[in-house]
Amino acid sequence: MNPLDSLMDALRCLPGVGRKTASRYAFHLMRAPAETVDALVGAIRDVREELRPCSVCHFYSENDPCSFCGDPARDAQMLCVVEDTLNVFQIEKSAGYRGRYHVLGGLIAPLKGIQPEHLHVEDLIRRVESGGFREVILALSPTVEGLTTARFLENILKDKAVTVSELARGLTVGTDLDYVDEVTLNLALEGRIPVRK
Amino acid sequence: MNPLDSLMDALRCLPGVGRKTASRYAFHLMRAPAETVDALVGAIRDVREELRPCSVCHFYSENDPCSFCGDPARDAQMLCVVEDTLNVFQIEKSAGYRGRYHVLGGLIAPLKGIQPEHLHVEDLIRRVESGGFREVILALSPTVEGLTTARFLENILKDKAVTVSELARGLTVGTDLDYVDEVTLNLALEGRIPVRK
Repeated sequence: MNPLDSLMDALRCLPGVGRKTASRYAFHLMRAPAETVDALVGAIRDVREELRPCSVCHFYSENDPCSFCGDPARDAQMLCVVEDTLNVFQIEKSAGYRGRYHVLGGLIAPLKGIQPEHLHVEDLIRRVESGGFREVILALSPTVEGLTTARFLENILKDKAVTVSELARGLTVGTDLDYVDEVTLNLALEGRIPVRK
Repeated sequence: MNPLDSLMDALRCLPGVGRKTASRYAFHLMRAPAETVDALVGAIRDVREELRPCSVCHFYSENDPCSFCGDPARDAQMLCVVEDTLNVFQIEKSAGYRGRYHVLGGLIAPLKGIQPEHLHVEDLIRRVESGGFREVILALSPTVEGLTTARFLENILKDKAVTVSELARGLTVGTDLDYVDEVTLNLALEGRIPVRK
């Protein structure tokens, strides 16, 4: 196999990359300056070698326990359950949360063969049972898989001495009411909030 | 800098990859199986180490001269001028051409500072002057830069003993006439072809 064809094949491992995008990337990598390509290859190596899932919350980090689990300044009574490490970055960027995290490593998806036992659910139960948490926020996407997972976790956590909450549903900031789907609009109406004076 | 941030930065060297796509790729590469990532890194290395521009036509290849320049079965009187190596693959896939190639390595784009002297134009003139070619096909994109380059090359080649042609303009196969732009439609009318009986 031609090295270029092999590279195109290998690039298709990236999410959402098909034949055309892979060939654009491959040609670019073939002709880019050596420093650019070396930087990319080095960065891939570093991520693989330096980042490991935290043994407490499964967030990928250079340290174990990670900086969230090990930071005494963060609220140790709040636990935010997310699908994966990317979501932790997103929530941190929004800057509205200062508690701990728990990364599930996926969502329940029976059709893809992903069952609760494939996710970090047992650890979550253990963490909640070992006490200390006041609230568990299920910060999962409002998709079929996210909702399935949330219902499953709610069910498991309902007997524990902890408040379980989930992210508010409503209008996206900057959205035009004309284009909002009816389910979201209904949820936004139900969850309406008093205007602050 | 966090290794993940470094990787996101490095991935933005790829064409059309912005912040969001880079983060999706980075998270994927962080968690993908070791074999997948090793295959990708290895394939990048191989492409960089094994492919070099052919000294005759500038096509990136494992051999020098490349398999097109060195193949006696190909028509040595036909020369197809293209922008880059990718176009050679595209033309080969269409399987309608069995001559030689000449890769310019870009298109004339004064606004981007790309002048004829930055492209493999001198080699092209030398190849045409050294004789043996019956026809030169300018297989360049019908964009402003492609047309500029084609006009420039036509001008240079007009005194040489060679037929200069360019790719036909017309309707794309599978297109809906309702959505064809008027310039293309005009060119398709002008270049209309008799129906084969």
